[in-house]
Amino acid sequence: MRLREEEARRRFAAAPVARLATAGQDGCPHLVPFTFVLGSRAGEAGSGPGDHIYSAVDAKPKSSTDLRRLRNIRANPRVAVLADHYEDDWDGLWWVRADGQAAILDDPATMAPALALLAGRYPQYREHPPAGPVISIHVDRWTGWTARLS
Amino acid sequence: MRLREEEARRRFAAAPVARLATAGQDGCPHLVPFTFVLGSRAGEAGSGPGDHIYSAVDAKPKSSTDLRRLRNIRANPRVAVLADHYEDDWDGLWWVRADGQAAILDDPATMAPALALLAGRYPQYREHPPAGPVISIHVDRWTGWTARLS
Repeated sequence: MRLREEEARRRFAAAPVARLATAGQDGCPHLVPFTFVLGSRAGEAGSGPGDHIYSAVDAKPKSSTDLRRLRNIRANPRVAVLADHYEDDWDGLWWVRADGQAAILDDPATMAPALALLAGRYPQYREHPPAGPVISIHVDRWTGWTARLS
Repeated sequence: MRLREEEARRRFAAAPVARLATAGQDGCPHLVPFTFVLGSRAGEAGSGPGDHIYSAVDAKPKSSTDLRRLRNIRANPRVAVLADHYEDDWDGLWWVRADGQAAILDDPATMAPALALLAGRYPQYREHPPAGPVISIHVDRWTGWTARLS
């Protein structure tokens, strides 16, 4: 059963981890798990989670392989992000996919609000602030599925 | 820390669910969770899990959107599959990605061995055998990462 957009967004926002799929110039899909925060809808009083996903590349040194996500986004900004829930009882399965357009933020001033949101969500980022860059995704489609509407 | 290939394969094989990333002719990445089985290495006595991932499209009617994975694979067989583990203690994080080449099996005779493996792994498939088609992925690269080698 399809999830309504608001419910899809709500479940996605509450997931502690999601997976980012990118595809570069070679058309090869790339896939990594990432921590993220869903930005609240600016300017709407009492609003729920919004349509901007933020994720940071953390401070640990990365091999060039790990940065393929950034090279891919520079070549092709279309991305898909998935949060899903599995349990042995398949009646409990659900998933939410966010399709959108990604941008890379590497200027300290533009990264700051996203890093603050991430630090608000993950204690690890308060202790060790990620150096960035930040991946900012404007979601233009939410798709959600559940085995059972609870 | 990088996981050795054998350990990456072992952790992947034990995960109950993974995520499949495909990219079609439009270069747009697509992402869905899927149940799967990692075929054992044929012809090797006492061998561990091998390099073929099998997944079935199940018997429930699907909207055309859900079949985008199949259209994408027909246009571009390169896929990435991810199994990952999250916990609040980030020392426990790990993930494994399988990059490979996908094929779609829809002939009953060619699907049968994969469907038997899937039924062996998931009781739900024994009760309700999936109609197929089957996605068969030949993995040509295993990449694994763990925060801590346990």
